[in-house]
Amino acid sequence: MATSEKTTLKGILTRYIPILDWSQRYNKKLAIGDITAALIVTLMLVPQALAYSMLAGLPPHVGLYASMLPLVAYAIFGTSNSLAVGPVAVAALMTASAVAPYAAQSIEMGMISAVILATISGLLLLASGILRLGFLANFLSHPVISGFISAASIIIATSQVPTLLGFSGSGDNMIALGSTIMDRLESLHTPTLIMSVITIALLLVSRCYGTKILGLLGLSKFSAQTANRAVPAILVVAGTFLMQSNYEWVKGIKTVGDIPAGLPGLSAPLIDGNMWHALWLPALLITIVGYVESISVAQSLAMKRKERIDPNQELIALGFANIAAAVSSGLPVTGGVSRSVVNSDAGALTPAAGLFTAMGMVGASLLITGWLGSLPKFILSATIVVAVLSIVDLSIFMKTLRLSTKDFLALAITFSLTLLINIEWGISAGVLISIGLHLYSSSKPHTAIVGRIAGTEHFRNIDRHKVEVCTDVVTLRIDESLYFANARFLEQRVLELIAENPKIKHLVLMFSAVNEIDSSAIEILETINHALKQQGIGFHLSEVKGPVMDYLKRSDLINTLNGKIFMTQFKAYEELACINNNK
Amino acid sequence: MATSEKTTLKGILTRYIPILDWSQRYNKKLAIGDITAALIVTLMLVPQALAYSMLAGLPPHVGLYASMLPLVAYAIFGTSNSLAVGPVAVAALMTASAVAPYAAQSIEMGMISAVILATISGLLLLASGILRLGFLANFLSHPVISGFISAASIIIATSQVPTLLGFSGSGDNMIALGSTIMDRLESLHTPTLIMSVITIALLLVSRCYGTKILGLLGLSKFSAQTANRAVPAILVVAGTFLMQSNYEWVKGIKTVGDIPAGLPGLSAPLIDGNMWHALWLPALLITIVGYVESISVAQSLAMKRKERIDPNQELIALGFANIAAAVSSGLPVTGGVSRSVVNSDAGALTPAAGLFTAMGMVGASLLITGWLGSLPKFILSATIVVAVLSIVDLSIFMKTLRLSTKDFLALAITFSLTLLINIEWGISAGVLISIGLHLYSSSKPHTAIVGRIAGTEHFRNIDRHKVEVCTDVVTLRIDESLYFANARFLEQRVLELIAENPKIKHLVLMFSAVNEIDSSAIEILETINHALKQQGIGFHLSEVKGPVMDYLKRSDLINTLNGKIFMTQFKAYEELACINNNK
Repeated sequence: MATSEKTTLKGILTRYIPILDWSQRYNKKLAIGDITAALIVTLMLVPQALAYSMLAGLPPHVGLYASMLPLVAYAIFGTSNSLAVGPVAVAALMTASAVAPYAAQSIEMGMISAVILATISGLLLLASGILRLGFLANFLSHPVISGFISAASIIIATSQVPTLLGFSGSGDNMIALGSTIMDRLESLHTPTLIMSVITIALLLVSRCYGTKILGLLGLSKFSAQTANRAVPAILVVAGTFLMQSNYEWVKGIKTVGDIPAGLPGLSAPLIDGNMWHALWLPALLITIVGYVESISVAQSLAMKRKERIDPNQELIALGFANIAAAVSSGLPVTGGVSRSVVNSDAGALTPAAGLFTAMGMVGASLLITGWLGSLPKFILSATIVVAVLSIVDLSIFMKTLRLSTKDFLALAITFSLTLLINIEWGISAGVLISIGLHLYSSSKPHTAIVGRIAGTEHFRNIDRHKVEVCTDVVTLRIDESLYFANARFLEQRVLELIAENPKIKHLVLMFSAVNEIDSSAIEILETINHALKQQGIGFHLSEVKGPVMDYLKRSDLINTLNGKIFMTQFKAYEELACINNNK
Repeated sequence: MATSEKTTLKGILTRYIPILDWSQRYNKKLAIGDITAALIVTLMLVPQALAYSMLAGLPPHVGLYASMLPLVAYAIFGTSNSLAVGPVAVAALMTASAVAPYAAQSIEMGMISAVILATISGLLLLASGILRLGFLANFLSHPVISGFISAASIIIATSQVPTLLGFSGSGDNMIALGSTIMDRLESLHTPTLIMSVITIALLLVSRCYGTKILGLLGLSKFSAQTANRAVPAILVVAGTFLMQSNYEWVKGIKTVGDIPAGLPGLSAPLIDGNMWHALWLPALLITIVGYVESISVAQSLAMKRKERIDPNQELIALGFANIAAAVSSGLPVTGGVSRSVVNSDAGALTPAAGLFTAMGMVGASLLITGWLGSLPKFILSATIVVAVLSIVDLSIFMKTLRLSTKDFLALAITFSLTLLINIEWGISAGVLISIGLHLYSSSKPHTAIVGRIAGTEHFRNIDRHKVEVCTDVVTLRIDESLYFANARFLEQRVLELIAENPKIKHLVLMFSAVNEIDSSAIEILETINHALKQQGIGFHLSEVKGPVMDYLKRSDLINTLNGKIFMTQFKAYEELACINNNK
């Protein structure tokens, strides 16, 4: 039934436009959950949208624009009931470094380049979804992502230091940022510094103890959580009021400046050959990192809720979300980790929560854009610093080192290069090192000469266990799929075995852990078979798996094999007359 | 004992300079075998050395120079008793394309660039040997090598067509070669064409029936084979005599021109920044292809003879051979397939056969360089064509297609790009495609839900076998090592399993085919464990292998696991109370 459903027009439509499916079952109960979650997410999203677009080097309203239509697009095409799409910190940092050369020319050029980034990212996501290339994101290994996110968070936090001290400055890496800060330290603005410290302290207290304190004040757990999540939004409003006051000391505090009132006008994405050429690589990296972040949180929330998501459809949904960001003058968007968790906790039951959030953002924008011009920048910077510092997890270094040197290497290199050179280097080096180390280790697979544990049908490594062997039959167990990268290793191993065991009459390769095989491996097996045949040594295989056996059957080896293929290693041992013959 | 031997100074010396070891056991019997083989190899090598240096776009004596000192270096450092080092066809073609821009300036510049290629190649080989990077050569998969060698051979044969027709012309790929030949067809020299056809016919008859015919004439098998292998050398001598005759029709036949008499002067390798920069990539490719060719033939001959070779020491030996080629004004060298097989068949017993071959080449050079100026080029071209066409193996296409689409794709792409664009493109694309396809397939591993075959302790795929299952315990067997590229796939698979089986009480992952694991996989297992724990679903592992278990023990998962790790799947089945509970 499931299959036939997939092939009908209706089936195809609901698969690619999931809203057609869940909207039919939509009811009041679902709506109450979604609206509650949307209210809470909106409270978080307003200050984050302003802050992350400032982080990206763009005017704050760009972030607001990116928090409307993209959410609608995701609600139509997305498969996760929890994912909260919009501007996120790491993608904003990556956008900042791509946009910087254009933003330096003019604010308009900066905004145009952000739109182009979102367009390219949207198209890449759509193409990957249609071509089912989502698996490519898997090559960002966990250590690489951890190292990258931690380093990026440190860079983000450091990049906010100038604003928190009341001056300006930017840089791609810690060295550049550090020297900028040092150079300009004399232009420190004390009132800004004091207010920054107070704001960060308030945000930290709210994050760590807010719900508890509000609970002690008599609020219910839900109300306390909600009120606490509104703290950054409240600080934004308070900051704006403060700047409209007449105190002398607020005069020197930098504000975000005029913001166009109202909603974004829609426009077609721009086609500019030169900018597309310059921006495709940053857009690709933003796309990959954004998709990995989004799919990770969507999968883990879905598993907690016994729900399903479709990774390929997620590519399509995020693709449309970015196209929507592009047509409404936004910046690249993706699913944010913290907001999605809040969305899920707060009771979101369907993607409609995103629709309601978008409505909330429209309402908030209409209400506040008039005032926002006098919002002090340090409040946004403080919001950013507190948000990203909670992401930095340096314990991952010890944890990974304990697990594996290889993974630690990938983590440390990604982390250091991201901090010291830039984001692109860090992430590219991390991916290449992960793949390289994986290929290296699979090119030298574990092998073991095995013998029989007396009285059983079990065969184990002769170096680790007390086992029976007979001198003229050698059994080599191969603990890896055989393919081009390790085929020659096998040849060398067999060559050494034959040279070491002059009395050998039979060689058995135990294939219990060989999950796959390719034509390079077949070629080497044929070479081995040919050489052993010339010397009158039998060449046998045991415990060959189904898919490998299918492959062997299509090759010539099966006809020329100078021996047998045994179902089990025990049968090989029995038949090669070892039982009465062991030493 | 073996270990202690390796750590003494003597042990280290004999490991890195194997001649110190085998020369101590050297005796008359070994010498007779080696000298016989050396004589026969010398007869083959003289025309080949001349031909391959012509193929490389260099004066013929460069090939002779590359057949002396490099063989001595290999005899000192090499570990194969069979390998015959010297100029080879494919490396010569690759040299040709690297050397071409310099050879176009002057013959001297061409020779200098060949020396620099050999220097870089030698240093790369030495460095790889010292850093034990030989495994990198494994990433040239069998289909890529086959496709590359066949395409290169076709290009080599085609590149000789102008010479065989009596004019000149060259090109990087089939399109360039084809149009060159078409353009110049009017300058065809009929006597050269006729003599070329006769020479090729003689060489083909000799190759296919020579030994048989000479046997019928009464020669012993060994003498017949030896005499037959001398045919190209005899044709070289005959050609030279022909050109010294007074026939009118030989006047227009092109000869190789003056060759300096005597032996190469020695000189230090040149350091020229610009040329090094331009030549390092071609040198790298020559190095990789040359090493793969050499190690393949060395390994397969060693296995036939129950001997051992050391792949890392082979890198060092070939490194010194190329440095030797550089100091004696030669071109890049490696172990040749056909000459090594002949060397082994003809009775070579130690690397000393190479020393004697080098002496033979010195003798031959002193004797013949005076004459060689009048050697007609078409004879060398005919030798090249007949030698390389025997390498082309188009049956590999059908064979590979039958085995695997993936491998066929790598083969076809390497073959076509080598033919149609150039060698560098063909081989680079082939390597990237092989690695890409491997990673792709390991990122989507085979998994199966398994059940128990009634009355046994065996568990098999429920889709393929009639098995017992119970509704509340689901066992998923994973047929691949778990690492970053497929960890997310596992998460998605489990997420779907949980959504599909609302009654599930226990999930068992059967790890019998999981050979390795990394921290990305641990992270995903922790996510799964956390989600299942929240839902009160048990999460168990069974049949975990030693190395994987070691890894798990170092992680937090082992302490937080919401279930058990069972030695065997049957124990898991028994304990999770399925035996009295199956449907």
